Amino acid sequence: MAFECEDEIMGFSTRIEAAISDAVNLGQTAPSPAKLASALRYAVSPGGARIRPTILMSVAAACGDDRPELTNAAAAALECIHCASLVHDDLPCFDDAETRRGKPSLHRAYSEPLAVLAGDSLIVMAFQILTRHASIDPQRAIGLMNILAEQTGMPNGICAGQGWESEQKIDLRAYHRAKTGALFVAATQMGAIAAGQDGAQWDELGSRIGEAFQVADDLRDALYNEAELGKPAGQDDLHGRPNAVAEYGIEGAISHMKNILGGAISSIPRCPGEAMLAKMVNAQAEMLTPVKWRSKHSNLHPGE
Amino acid sequence: MAFECEDEIMGFSTRIEAAISDAVNLGQTAPSPAKLASALRYAVSPGGARIRPTILMSVAAACGDDRPELTNAAAAALECIHCASLVHDDLPCFDDAETRRGKPSLHRAYSEPLAVLAGDSLIVMAFQILTRHASIDPQRAIGLMNILAEQTGMPNGICAGQGWESEQKIDLRAYHRAKTGALFVAATQMGAIAAGQDGAQWDELGSRIGEAFQVADDLRDALYNEAELGKPAGQDDLHGRPNAVAEYGIEGAISHMKNILGGAISSIPRCPGEAMLAKMVNAQAEMLTPVKWRSKHSNLHPGE
Repeated sequence: MAFECEDEIMGFSTRIEAAISDAVNLGQTAPSPAKLASALRYAVSPGGARIRPTILMSVAAACGDDRPELTNAAAAALECIHCASLVHDDLPCFDDAETRRGKPSLHRAYSEPLAVLAGDSLIVMAFQILTRHASIDPQRAIGLMNILAEQTGMPNGICAGQGWESEQKIDLRAYHRAKTGALFVAATQMGAIAAGQDGAQWDELGSRIGEAFQVADDLRDALYNEAELGKPAGQDDLHGRPNAVAEYGIEGAISHMKNILGGAISSIPRCPGEAMLAKMVNAQAEMLTPVKWRSKHSNLHPGE
Repeated sequence: MAFECEDEIMGFSTRIEAAISDAVNLGQTAPSPAKLASALRYAVSPGGARIRPTILMSVAAACGDDRPELTNAAAAALECIHCASLVHDDLPCFDDAETRRGKPSLHRAYSEPLAVLAGDSLIVMAFQILTRHASIDPQRAIGLMNILAEQTGMPNGICAGQGWESEQKIDLRAYHRAKTGALFVAATQMGAIAAGQDGAQWDELGSRIGEAFQVADDLRDALYNEAELGKPAGQDDLHGRPNAVAEYGIEGAISHMKNILGGAISSIPRCPGEAMLAKMVNAQAEMLTPVKWRSKHSNLHPGE
């Protein structure tokens, strides 16, 4: 059964990469600034684990996935927003990261202006991918864009999450919910909406996966070095950010994460693909667990 | 007749300000990062001349404006994109502007991280305003978002325009078309689409107004000082940017601008409000002309 699940994820991966590649290569016949065009491709490939679009596709599959082209568009749109956030978060005025996904961060490889513009262009592209596919089902497309906007912008999306870091007094719940949880909530809701279901029912699953991911991210930040992560390590301690490892210790954080994922699985709404989806969440959990603590060997890339 | 036209513009102004204010104040009951929320309001108000949404509303009015709420949403969305571009263009890695619209630029008043996030949030907000109003007419809303995305992102929108400045060899036509023209094309096309008409027919009007605006901007940059402009002056010469004043001289550039606007007026498609719209374009032309060369006194603010 684990094998079937991996096959399914491979199928999703093919669809996700094709949809992202279509998006960034669109309209390349008109005269356009070559470096920015290249920076966009650099920002989206090679991808990390593509966790968010994989979750989106898993939920869509569990709900019947009767409009696969719209699901593909939704997955690519969500990943564009995620990539935009990575590019902007890496900027000198935020994390000033030298590396990302094992290669120089975009502003190091290109320039700071091109990093700002690549992020901006990817945000726009996310919505454009959905408008271009809206004729498949206009109501669903509008629903998808609505959730994507809510979980990206102010006052509750990832922009808000990053914005909390400029506050003297941080609402920690709102901060984590917005900074890490928002795009997981987008993933589950958009997967459901793309398949014609009510997104709101899927909010809790996304929100719990987001909490688990936050704990996993804290663990990776504490346990891995830069070469293993493909991005700078030890950033939480360095920036004095609250994190689960400082709160619970390593073993405690791992069991906390597994409990959250247990709750995530039990929150899955009744649907034809319920059992398959539970397996997916467990597979993600395995990926999120630091190698030494995994139940079996996995060669999945640990970070983004 | 000039008086009627000014009344109409005042009516548009009330609608535009209300729609923008609704958008930036939305969802302020949930816990959200206060500085970023404040930065968003700072970025959109007090507005400049609101030229782009005014053109959008003028075209919608000329086409019958049968869905005024959708027109309002479209105007606010377009202005959010314009404000986002101002905030990001002012960043230290681009123009490093100290002032904008007569007050400190956003990154000077708040911080560079908040300026990046405010720009990002405004881009998202633009699309969100339209998805929130999509139920008025889903097809038109999708059409509006499609044009807005095209004229904002890559390869032809304002992001592409700014991206050209990182190229060693600039395609000047594509550069001006994208950097300045794109949001005017968005303005005329979105005005038509909001009122249920075919956007493509209105491309030329937007594109010509954009050309005229570029010449006017070159004139202002050359003729005004920072206090008059509300932003740094003499930037074209400083950055060695090609500009109409260097090419034609001052008087030559003014007559070039008026010729382009003549072409703009003659490109207006047949519609009930054709004559009114021609007056609007002339009113905009008056605003674009440096004070000393205007045909009559006007106290409209010259810059943004």
